[in-house]
Amino acid sequence: MATKPPSSLSALIEALRALPGVGPKSAQRIAYHLMQHDRSGAVRLGEALLGASQGLRHCERCNTFTEATICELCSDDTRDASVLCVVETPADQAMLEQTLTFRGLYFVLMGRLSPLDGIGPNDVHFDRLIRRAEDGVVKEVVLATNFTNEGEATAHYLAQMLKARGLSVSRLARGVPMGGELEYVDVGTIARAMVDRRTV
Amino acid sequence: MATKPPSSLSALIEALRALPGVGPKSAQRIAYHLMQHDRSGAVRLGEALLGASQGLRHCERCNTFTEATICELCSDDTRDASVLCVVETPADQAMLEQTLTFRGLYFVLMGRLSPLDGIGPNDVHFDRLIRRAEDGVVKEVVLATNFTNEGEATAHYLAQMLKARGLSVSRLARGVPMGGELEYVDVGTIARAMVDRRTV
Ligand SMILES: [Zn+2]
Ligand SMILES: [Zn+2]
Repeated sequence: MATKPPSSLSALIEALRALPGVGPKSAQRIAYHLMQHDRSGAVRLGEALLGASQGLRHCERCNTFTEATICELCSDDTRDASVLCVVETPADQAMLEQTLTFRGLYFVLMGRLSPLDGIGPNDVHFDRLIRRAEDGVVKEVVLATNFTNEGEATAHYLAQMLKARGLSVSRLARGVPMGGELEYVDVGTIARAMVDRRTV
Repeated sequence: MATKPPSSLSALIEALRALPGVGPKSAQRIAYHLMQHDRSGAVRLGEALLGASQGLRHCERCNTFTEATICELCSDDTRDASVLCVVETPADQAMLEQTLTFRGLYFVLMGRLSPLDGIGPNDVHFDRLIRRAEDGVVKEVVLATNFTNEGEATAHYLAQMLKARGLSVSRLARGVPMGGELEYVDVGTIARAMVDRRTV
């Protein structure tokens, strides 16, 4: 008759499995670590999870995370609304912003096509991007998905959809190394790739 | 002028760094994953962290996590109170319980000596174990710390302290593979090591 752990500890170990890549053994270790050595960190994380889960929504224009209806960048009327840059994640967007080479607006896919994982166009909500790009103001769409197989497939698919609707479509130049993921590439390389972007 | 992420997202990314081994990049990836794909998991984890942080204390007798003053096992008066088994973690205790070879009580160190990390006897609160072992009822202390360098050093140190106080001290037999950590060893091996434990 083995003793069971206290229920709030079991619940914590179980809940930690929601973290990507965390199995039963590491969930147990993380729970012991937090409860033994870092309760204030555990409380801060607990409150942050609840706060973000309640507070974050998707920007109605660009789809990134925001606490408002329209995010700060989309609300900035000094940006050039005729150019729309499509990225996979908010981290990719932040990298591009750091290059200071782009003054247009963004659309954040929050994903990518991944046929091997069964992630198709409907799962990534490309319909929202198409509607956004067809606002009559956007003239050019810059595809800045990653230069991985999945990012390239996404760009290829989007290019066809957007060109069929009469939009000019470009892709970051191949200054980005093959197989590279934007957020791990240095800012200078991304800056050059943005300047050298080519029509596709 | 790069855009900042919404404050509740920044707070979440920052708070995720409390998890062992999570740096800035993986904190960001975990935050995006949870907010994009698993909000209910995030809420469950948030509530579990707050619940465990508030509800868990240390058993006054054995030092393991409990929601009461004395844990369930320590309250079980069918256990043999004359034998006290010392383990590093609740996971190690659970493994030993599974072997069904031990009917005594436990003391859970919640740590081990680790001179290289600057963790000495005071950090592991050996004074609490000594007080517990000197209750006049305990006759034998079984040292079941891991068979790693740190676990062996801990066992060696404790053996000296406890023998100096007139207690009989034993160590799990070397059926446990050298360098092995208890929670990764099969139950049969641990069972044999418990039966074969030797006086030190
Ligand atoms: Zn926006
Ligand atoms: Zn106890």
